[in-house]
Amino acid sequence: MEKPLITIRETKPLVHHITNWVTIYDCANMTRAFGALPVMAHAREEAADMTGIASALVLNIGTLTSDLIGAMIISAKAANEKSIPVVLDAVGVGATKFRDDMAAKILDSVHVDVIKGNYSEIAKLAGEDAQTKGVEATSIEADPKRIAKEYADSRSCVVVMTGKEDIISDGKRGFIVKNGHDSMGSIVGTGCMAASVIGTFAAVNPDYCDAAKDALCYFGIAGELAAEKSGGPGTFKMHFYDEVAGLSDENAQSKLNVEEY
Amino acid sequence: MEKPLITIRETKPLVHHITNWVTIYDCANMTRAFGALPVMAHAREEAADMTGIASALVLNIGTLTSDLIGAMIISAKAANEKSIPVVLDAVGVGATKFRDDMAAKILDSVHVDVIKGNYSEIAKLAGEDAQTKGVEATSIEADPKRIAKEYADSRSCVVVMTGKEDIISDGKRGFIVKNGHDSMGSIVGTGCMAASVIGTFAAVNPDYCDAAKDALCYFGIAGELAAEKSGGPGTFKMHFYDEVAGLSDENAQSKLNVEEY
Amino acid sequence: MEKPLITIRETKPLVHHITNWVTIYDCANMTRAFGALPVMAHAREEAADMTGIASALVLNIGTLTSDLIGAMIISAKAANEKSIPVVLDAVGVGATKFRDDMAAKILDSVHVDVIKGNYSEIAKLAGEDAQTKGVEATSIEADPKRIAKEYADSRSCVVVMTGKEDIISDGKRGFIVKNGHDSMGSIVGTGCMAASVIGTFAAVNPDYCDAAKDALCYFGIAGELAAEKSGGPGTFKMHFYDEVAGLSDENAQSKLNVEEY
Repeated sequence: MEKPLITIRETKPLVHHITNWVTIYDCANMTRAFGALPVMAHAREEAADMTGIASALVLNIGTLTSDLIGAMIISAKAANEKSIPVVLDAVGVGATKFRDDMAAKILDSVHVDVIKGNYSEIAKLAGEDAQTKGVEATSIEADPKRIAKEYADSRSCVVVMTGKEDIISDGKRGFIVKNGHDSMGSIVGTGCMAASVIGTFAAVNPDYCDAAKDALCYFGIAGELAAEKSGGPGTFKMHFYDEVAGLSDENAQSKLNVEEY
Repeated sequence: MEKPLITIRETKPLVHHITNWVTIYDCANMTRAFGALPVMAHAREEAADMTGIASALVLNIGTLTSDLIGAMIISAKAANEKSIPVVLDAVGVGATKFRDDMAAKILDSVHVDVIKGNYSEIAKLAGEDAQTKGVEATSIEADPKRIAKEYADSRSCVVVMTGKEDIISDGKRGFIVKNGHDSMGSIVGTGCMAASVIGTFAAVNPDYCDAAKDALCYFGIAGELAAEKSGGPGTFKMHFYDEVAGLSDENAQSKLNVEEY
Repeated sequence: MEKPLITIRETKPLVHHITNWVTIYDCANMTRAFGALPVMAHAREEAADMTGIASALVLNIGTLTSDLIGAMIISAKAANEKSIPVVLDAVGVGATKFRDDMAAKILDSVHVDVIKGNYSEIAKLAGEDAQTKGVEATSIEADPKRIAKEYADSRSCVVVMTGKEDIISDGKRGFIVKNGHDSMGSIVGTGCMAASVIGTFAAVNPDYCDAAKDALCYFGIAGELAAEKSGGPGTFKMHFYDEVAGLSDENAQSKLNVEEY
């Protein structure tokens, strides 16, 4: 997409989240900083209705309960019917059996358009041998580029593996996003925010692979710019929001660092 | 009230919140920055007891569930018995039927002293034709000044409609608060924090209409001062807290921008 | 312990939290800033499994429900079996009977290694006459140093009473930590973060009394350094994270302000 930021800021898509209680504020605030409208709503009674007026749905199982997974499935069915993108952030898959089971339950019940996680979370989902240390990736033996492409192909969706380099594939095309900065890992919530940003870009771009690539490039570029001004995680986080809000398509396009594979 | 800030800082009223999971930290932190003591407690088993030691109750339905609404009603009944102010932030009314129904359930079960929302939320509550885009106001056809005054009169309470200009009425008097800055809309949670600030001022001022007016003027003035120093939503939010904590009654009184109607 | 920070940053212990919804982000982010890995997970179905891969468990009853207390007890039993430290932050004990009862339920069901609270919370737990104003300490008549030592002795655990001076005892030894700054009380969540930091230090130091002392000294020193650069609660919080992340064992050891009693 040529100018995703302008499109987001002009159309202000509503991005419905059912997410975790740790980073829920930052997921909302980052969505807002990019120019979209976040709404967080998890009651089963309104889950479908809220998705019904949204342009994208972001699910995050970071602090999942059975009840919350139920609401996610209701909303995802509504999103499937309406053909708006569903992004699943598979936080902590590979850490406990319950997370593995609940992620499987979502994936068996509805179509997820973008499955996102860190290297070990996605490797575990894809059936590889992998453990996650709480919500932190551990190193995996298999090649993430292969996993992303094969898993995306098998599920007819887009797969995003975030890490030092972000791997994105829809089963045919593959992208390696090299934008970003180590400081992004110094604060809690960057991964969750990335899922919100992917949802935001996918809300205005029906090519979800392209949307995920743009989202992670732009997000990473804002992180690079913020890191230049920062002296630690506190100042970094503050500048991160300023840089996202101040980003333009022109500025971002001149800083893209992405390869196809 | 002549010097509300000094009164708040000297008496340190306890402001009990049953609120949403997105902005719960900022509601607490803003209450603290103004000088009051926030407490967030939503278990039904302690809802009435916690309200029983508080000086104001703030309810916010941003991430409502049936269970949470139940706790809100228990607390509001305790507040009514104790004659301390109940502030309801009607977040997202007009977005889903569930929110409309749950807000109505609260309003039918207890006396709410200050009903607060954005233009479309309050218009919807007042029976006008209005939709809310998630938790974001959409433009309404009717005159908000008329809605606020008539709705306040019909419910014998104070009505607050927040937006570019904040409209406040108790059915007889009406105020238009013009303090504030666009930057306040650049971050998530300003509306929720405003309800906390109204609760804080109402905790020390039995004239709730006057308290709401002072609260929104002071809150807006701190926003104006913070905006002067900010380069985006990250720096704005940081300075906002500093300016609130550094505000004095003298400084605020010299910057009031409010009209009667 | 000679160099706790280096040990934390090299071993990156996983610190499992079941905590409150107000400060959950800051508990996680402060744990991360010290160099450990936080994970927040409260579903009963995974509580024991998540604790099973962790090096410490931090429980915080700030926004307790019966259900959440159940998950805490499941996790604490798993921690007891695995012999990893359990830290309980007794937020709001002394404010409502429900909090008193639920704290007692935890303490009757499992072994808690570090019981932490403000002066009135711990005094109440220890059977003294004390009230808590929401989650804010009120002054107590009894001597906190005596309470900490006797209560720790009676329960064979470490007791931490936080306030202007932090009191720590394992029943035999006692410490008075004088590091810290008034600015730490200007933001919501410092107390909760302190419990996370104690959990982080206890994860790498089997002498939990020593770990708690180091944790509160280091935490207080970062607060002192941040306060020097701050103009209010907003700037303070930002700098606080930078100073924690930038702290070294050498720098901290040179600024210790602690007495034995």
